[in-house]
Amino acid sequence: MTEPALAPAPSADTLLEALRARLGAAHVLTAPSDLDPYLVESRKLYRGSALAAVRPGSTEEVAFVVEACAAAGVAVVAQGGNTGLVGGGVPHGGVVLSLARMNRIVSLDPVNASIVVEAGAILADVQDAADAAGLLFPLSYASRGSARIGGALACNSGGIAVLAYGNARDLVLGLEVVLADGRVWNGLKALRKNNAGYDLKHLFVGSEGTLGIITMAVLKLFPKPASRTVGFVGLPSVRVALDLFARLRKRADRDLTAFEFIPPVGLDMVLRHMPGTVRPLAGAHGAYALIELASARPDADTRAELEAALSDAIEDGLVEDATLGASEAQNLGLWALREHLSDAQGYEGGSIKHDVSVPLSRLADFVEQASAACEAAMPGLRVCAFGHVGDGNMHFNLSQPVGMDKAAFLGAWADFNRIVHDIVTAMDGSIAAEHGVGLIKRDELQHYGDPVALDLMRAIKAGLDPQDRLNPGKVVALSSDPQPALP
Amino acid sequence: MTEPALAPAPSADTLLEALRARLGAAHVLTAPSDLDPYLVESRKLYRGSALAAVRPGSTEEVAFVVEACAAAGVAVVAQGGNTGLVGGGVPHGGVVLSLARMNRIVSLDPVNASIVVEAGAILADVQDAADAAGLLFPLSYASRGSARIGGALACNSGGIAVLAYGNARDLVLGLEVVLADGRVWNGLKALRKNNAGYDLKHLFVGSEGTLGIITMAVLKLFPKPASRTVGFVGLPSVRVALDLFARLRKRADRDLTAFEFIPPVGLDMVLRHMPGTVRPLAGAHGAYALIELASARPDADTRAELEAALSDAIEDGLVEDATLGASEAQNLGLWALREHLSDAQGYEGGSIKHDVSVPLSRLADFVEQASAACEAAMPGLRVCAFGHVGDGNMHFNLSQPVGMDKAAFLGAWADFNRIVHDIVTAMDGSIAAEHGVGLIKRDELQHYGDPVALDLMRAIKAGLDPQDRLNPGKVVALSSDPQPALP
Repeated sequence: MTEPALAPAPSADTLLEALRARLGAAHVLTAPSDLDPYLVESRKLYRGSALAAVRPGSTEEVAFVVEACAAAGVAVVAQGGNTGLVGGGVPHGGVVLSLARMNRIVSLDPVNASIVVEAGAILADVQDAADAAGLLFPLSYASRGSARIGGALACNSGGIAVLAYGNARDLVLGLEVVLADGRVWNGLKALRKNNAGYDLKHLFVGSEGTLGIITMAVLKLFPKPASRTVGFVGLPSVRVALDLFARLRKRADRDLTAFEFIPPVGLDMVLRHMPGTVRPLAGAHGAYALIELASARPDADTRAELEAALSDAIEDGLVEDATLGASEAQNLGLWALREHLSDAQGYEGGSIKHDVSVPLSRLADFVEQASAACEAAMPGLRVCAFGHVGDGNMHFNLSQPVGMDKAAFLGAWADFNRIVHDIVTAMDGSIAAEHGVGLIKRDELQHYGDPVALDLMRAIKAGLDPQDRLNPGKVVALSSDPQPALP
Repeated sequence: MTEPALAPAPSADTLLEALRARLGAAHVLTAPSDLDPYLVESRKLYRGSALAAVRPGSTEEVAFVVEACAAAGVAVVAQGGNTGLVGGGVPHGGVVLSLARMNRIVSLDPVNASIVVEAGAILADVQDAADAAGLLFPLSYASRGSARIGGALACNSGGIAVLAYGNARDLVLGLEVVLADGRVWNGLKALRKNNAGYDLKHLFVGSEGTLGIITMAVLKLFPKPASRTVGFVGLPSVRVALDLFARLRKRADRDLTAFEFIPPVGLDMVLRHMPGTVRPLAGAHGAYALIELASARPDADTRAELEAALSDAIEDGLVEDATLGASEAQNLGLWALREHLSDAQGYEGGSIKHDVSVPLSRLADFVEQASAACEAAMPGLRVCAFGHVGDGNMHFNLSQPVGMDKAAFLGAWADFNRIVHDIVTAMDGSIAAEHGVGLIKRDELQHYGDPVALDLMRAIKAGLDPQDRLNPGKVVALSSDPQPALP
């Protein structure tokens, strides 16, 4: 029996020609120097390859690109600011679709406290637009000046305001998404309550471009804090930091907007390498925490609140020393100590990173056990575990021993994954807390993931992208995936 | 060509025998008097039919039932407290699977502020367990004494605390779900951040038992408010209520935990029919709002906060009169005026109900336009629009004209749906805000839903329940659905 005849797939040249005709030649990049920025990612762990990078200017053009690529049997990898940390935007052949030109703030509704933005809008621009209207868009992290909202949603990014406002997905009211076949789902609702069928937006958020390409979003805004106080405290240990967190959560309730953990080794790296940083406390301590209280209540005095809470904590022996930012400039200076941690590690040679979470009741155990196990596995290794204590989320990063060959150190990535992720899994944690799975954790997810959950994910992928054209080889391992997961 | 031979499906008798053998005869109900409570729903709009109602005592038994029914080609309709308002739990043949015996509070982790409960746990019991640990489980509504958590999650129920704490889905950290083929997905994570693949829990929450049967859940807890003040205010109109809400949201920030709208016609019905209720304000007003401020901050004085805010609002002409609960008993008395609204309507004859949402910026327009359109369509009709102003969610209920035949009035349900839902849709709202779709809105969703969204929902249903065995005929209309949607 013969197969029914199919129309031949267009060649790559025919595809590029069609894309140029629709988008304009200036927005179909194929020269190596033009293409290069789209092939590497922020950690420089991977170098991909692509036929072209295209820069559509509208949802209709995104749909055209996806449909044309589908007809040609070519994969599409969406990219926003290309600031992702898990290799999720690295192409392996196919076409890179950059949302960078679709960067408009479309509208802001102050009464509904919502904003409509294109997927390529830069996170800081969304924050600024909200601020100009007297409102707050709370999603924030160090790369806010270049991260784009579509990527932030595709990865369900977390950051420094999750404790009070939730992850990226919690800030989404509606989405517009281009599907694998080029159709457009218009789910741009600006509603706080909507139970009209399955919640599709939560499926696309966090799917890292493998189920659809987000082209527009409706986001929640909040009252802008009128009072904000940042404190930096020295404590004996991560365990005591957890105790302090529990106390502050109860005492400040939802005025507690951040509680970040900083280890001594990390603070030292920041002070050593990052210009303009200043040691916040005179003495040395076993652990540090950055604490933020904020409220939009005009009569809130978050400084008095935090002062009183910390003075009690000093009296009770939880806190050894503390300082409060006396101005917004000082607040930002304290925050910089936390936000520079990742960059500062870059000056200390190779860094093997884990973005993990456990229940808060296991967090101190996790840091202690994982640190001991890693240090035992490689003498001289420097554990730099920092992050979002209030979310149970640690960036459990390992800096190489001083003087060791960087490549040799990074060669141990898989071994350290096994050590750290085994402990995380034994504590019912997640091996991918806020950065996503992408390429770097795809095989780890395959290894640790519940087989039933992985089957469900594959069934969803097969239902929404049966040809595996959207960011193939990321998140869920399919049999057709060609790429190695670890760098 | 002949079809490959299949093993014959077990007969209904064989199935019931197998279920009795596994669950015990006492938990397989077939006698009409035993079965009856599982065939009717709270509004008495539908009467279903079923082979049996079964009461498994464990996840393994749920899985057994689902697998046995799948093998016999028999549908399974999960039921919790059977308090749903959209006919989502009404069986049309097949087996009703009641989660009522699986009602345990499994564990509570005070440090992680989370609780693990079986799906059949009663909402009030979950609230009480949290309270006993000095914490808050905020999900709440009038049926809290009989609603069960599995149903609450399956419907993504809303209620009176959504403004501050989100819908049911926002309170879920993890789930255990029995799938259509009887496999169990163990997603019982107690994590604030988890990006390890697609977010499956958000797919099951709100799917009304059509994609899987929730058997256990991990829920978020919060600091318990130390200070709570309830106010009841009289205002000129719903439009001014919106202005007051905007002002309070800014002034109280996240201390504003509820803002509910009550129309004069509704307040009168409550005072007329519900024993123990007392008129809260001396005069009559064009509109009423119930306002709650709460905080866990030990130094919070929510009474002073609300007094100051309302006194300014009176001075500025927004509020005409106001009273504050002087004790917790008075707070509950004011809340009762709001919570009795739906029951009170039952004493006024037939009621045609709409559970809709629009952006807050359109809410006053919606109430005005929809009221005028409905009143024009049926002289004497009494519009009783009440609900969650802060969420943009109105229960736009229509009480029959005095003296009209109830059945004749209810016969106009489809006509009023068209009037109200047309206006909601024109305002980019939702025709199913917090109660779900179930049976009663299935064809409305088909009529108003984005065709691409409906295709996606069908693809998901087909991927997860290819035989359409789980709660068939609900939420998404499939070609095989036999049931009429409207009563």
